[in-house]
Amino acid sequence: MLKNEDKKMEEIISFCKEKGFVYRSSEIYDGISGCYDYGPNGVELLKNIKDFWWRENVYKKNNFYGIDSAIFKNPKVWEASGHTEGFSDPMAECKNCNTRIRVDKELEKIGEEADEKMPESEINSLFEKNKEKIKCPKCGEKNFSKAKAFNLLVKSNLGDFTEKSSSPVYLPGEASQGIYLNYKNIVQSFSPKIPFGISQIGKAFRNEISPRNFLFRTREFEQADTQFFIAPNENVENFKKTKEERFSWYKKLGLSEKNLKFKDHQNLVFYAAEATDIEYNFPDFGFEEIEGIHDRTDYDLSVHQKNSGKDLNYNNDGEKFLPWIIETSMGLGRVFLAVICEFYREEILEDGEKRRVLSLPVFLAPTKIAVLPLMKKDGLKEEAFKIFQKLSENFVCSFDETGSIGKRYRRADEVGTPYCLTYDYDSKENQDVTVRDRDSMKQERIKISELENYLTEKLK
Amino acid sequence: MLKNEDKKMEEIISFCKEKGFVYRSSEIYDGISGCYDYGPNGVELLKNIKDFWWRENVYKKNNFYGIDSAIFKNPKVWEASGHTEGFSDPMAECKNCNTRIRVDKELEKIGEEADEKMPESEINSLFEKNKEKIKCPKCGEKNFSKAKAFNLLVKSNLGDFTEKSSSPVYLPGEASQGIYLNYKNIVQSFSPKIPFGISQIGKAFRNEISPRNFLFRTREFEQADTQFFIAPNENVENFKKTKEERFSWYKKLGLSEKNLKFKDHQNLVFYAAEATDIEYNFPDFGFEEIEGIHDRTDYDLSVHQKNSGKDLNYNNDGEKFLPWIIETSMGLGRVFLAVICEFYREEILEDGEKRRVLSLPVFLAPTKIAVLPLMKKDGLKEEAFKIFQKLSENFVCSFDETGSIGKRYRRADEVGTPYCLTYDYDSKENQDVTVRDRDSMKQERIKISELENYLTEKLK
Repeated sequence: MLKNEDKKMEEIISFCKEKGFVYRSSEIYDGISGCYDYGPNGVELLKNIKDFWWRENVYKKNNFYGIDSAIFKNPKVWEASGHTEGFSDPMAECKNCNTRIRVDKELEKIGEEADEKMPESEINSLFEKNKEKIKCPKCGEKNFSKAKAFNLLVKSNLGDFTEKSSSPVYLPGEASQGIYLNYKNIVQSFSPKIPFGISQIGKAFRNEISPRNFLFRTREFEQADTQFFIAPNENVENFKKTKEERFSWYKKLGLSEKNLKFKDHQNLVFYAAEATDIEYNFPDFGFEEIEGIHDRTDYDLSVHQKNSGKDLNYNNDGEKFLPWIIETSMGLGRVFLAVICEFYREEILEDGEKRRVLSLPVFLAPTKIAVLPLMKKDGLKEEAFKIFQKLSENFVCSFDETGSIGKRYRRADEVGTPYCLTYDYDSKENQDVTVRDRDSMKQERIKISELENYLTEKLK
Repeated sequence: MLKNEDKKMEEIISFCKEKGFVYRSSEIYDGISGCYDYGPNGVELLKNIKDFWWRENVYKKNNFYGIDSAIFKNPKVWEASGHTEGFSDPMAECKNCNTRIRVDKELEKIGEEADEKMPESEINSLFEKNKEKIKCPKCGEKNFSKAKAFNLLVKSNLGDFTEKSSSPVYLPGEASQGIYLNYKNIVQSFSPKIPFGISQIGKAFRNEISPRNFLFRTREFEQADTQFFIAPNENVENFKKTKEERFSWYKKLGLSEKNLKFKDHQNLVFYAAEATDIEYNFPDFGFEEIEGIHDRTDYDLSVHQKNSGKDLNYNNDGEKFLPWIIETSMGLGRVFLAVICEFYREEILEDGEKRRVLSLPVFLAPTKIAVLPLMKKDGLKEEAFKIFQKLSENFVCSFDETGSIGKRYRRADEVGTPYCLTYDYDSKENQDVTVRDRDSMKQERIKISELENYLTEKLK
């Protein structure tokens, strides 16, 4: 069996395409940089990850509220949040061929300590010092302009024909602003007792100069965020508790502990009291962030209160204050990729045959049951199809009639389907089917009348 | 009881806000035209509608494939589809105050037959003929520029710093293009037998000049689309069958037949063989489209084959052809609004008290079970909370401890929660709770140990 660290990202990418998990966006037009589509198996795996997150972060907590905010927001939102000013990467342009580079990333590559939050002057003096070491990735010249902040917000022309506004309508640079904007609505509609949480799964967009590492760094992505609203100065304990909870969520998702770790931030942004990332050990590029956890104090509600002119205080039995916030923000595409990397494996069977398996926990499997007629003839197909129809009322099933049973088992293994049911010549006589388990590859005969209960139990 | 036609949209809008179904986007910044956020109850109702659609249009059909394509697509997609050229509304500008109007809509209002697909010359001669009848909605003048086509596609500045392209990256004007783009991927990954379907729920964006009627006409919206790929010339029968299936889906959703009707298109776009809308009878504005069903022949795959240079033929045992397409496209926000309008009612109880009920079918209810401790004291709250936690493993529950039981029943009724469980002083003694039914308002005592089975049966 291949270990995680032996897997290759290239292999994962081609597996994802071949088996209908992830395709490039606009594939027939040769794609578009940093954008991907989820295929039939991908859309189900993604949905299962989302549903599991939603159950733990909305349903199972009585004081957590789910929302879904629009992509388009009033332009003032992004001014208030600081994104129009500060949400940028330091970039420089090759004077020979106009290719742009991320200066902080190039400096990191040659061993300098640099990041996108450094002041422009500081990064430029580092850049100047190392100018002989940094080549244009396109033409090879070493002749760049100075580093300049390039804003990552994507602009649109929404409404520019009627409403005169000094700012364009941006696409969200992060999904979480939608939560701050709805804090007051939630308080008015539900009168939640503090502490309470608001959770959301939403899209974000960034004018990323160099999308890379497949689903890891894209221009369009989905985030699952919870903002936990707490009383002032109760942040330290809540931050600690939140870290533990979130780490344990990834273990429940099925990621192994050895592939997970925290990375506490050293350089905090000015408003943050504490910040940590949860990282996953990806093939090829190693430990990288899949979730950020931030102790944001009262920064977000303060700036929105100031800029909107609306009173955002929480009234706690007469005592008024701006809640503090502990934020957790998960990159869904990254977690999707981590799950595939964790559970994809190739193994050599006893008979020497190779099989590829996606050994997903059953709750994550895109399809739970594959229904297979042994042959298309002699009415086997029709009877098997009836079972498919019956089970599809409650389970996600597939029906596969093409190729040998062995081949069909392999196809089911590759996409992580935990159970295959085969309807054969004995089935009509005995009213039973063969149920084959993906992991043990063991088979047993189960009465058709008992299938529903049997599978409900197995798929719990 | 108020009948559907007696309901007022204004009342529905304020109900949606009050009870956490729908808020204006960026409410604290006074909103943004034509964009809405789903609150805690709205997000669940929307999810239940989507899940029901997905089950019927993906899971229960063995030859239907679900996808989720990125919002950003290669700019060539929108040129090929004709959106950069033809996706426009005829608009004119008031010469006095620069306000723009939709000329076709203004002509319709005064009884002329006009629509957005009319040639510019034709609409302008109608406009000229009626110039004395059309006033500027802002300043009241009757002095407009000529009508000109205004493109509805929303543009972005994605990637404009590195990739030199003549076209900007657009946001999707309709979600369905993502399906055509993935047709070849699906055929390669899954070798589906024709006829087969590809389904998707996705966002679309339009630079709509006059968003109106709440969720009905917005600038950002979600669509649930199925493209059914069929052999050439098998369209007539498949179109008919699809119409029936989709109409029956709305009835299964719970919309009453008297509020639903077909409206066949008279003016077909050039490539369409047949087209019909399913309309719902909304309060205030009456019957309007909630879904479009189109017989698109081989138009879409033809234009993408031509523009992409990729072979999009389907190989049917050696016979090659471009599949024809029957499309169904549902507006999710519109259907969400139809569901609220259908099931919202006010009624006068026998004791003269008024109650508001959202009498949703249980599968659509945002919350299935409200758990209510009779009092906070004497350990009732803690015991009730244990029941909430246990049931939340499998059901969507709420926990409400505030106000009298009567008030809490009303709150549950308003958001459509079918069952309320009350834990009272007898509960500890007898290990049972009161289960109260939303519609009949009848109550019965159920053993705590039997709750799980009892509710599973009730909520099927």
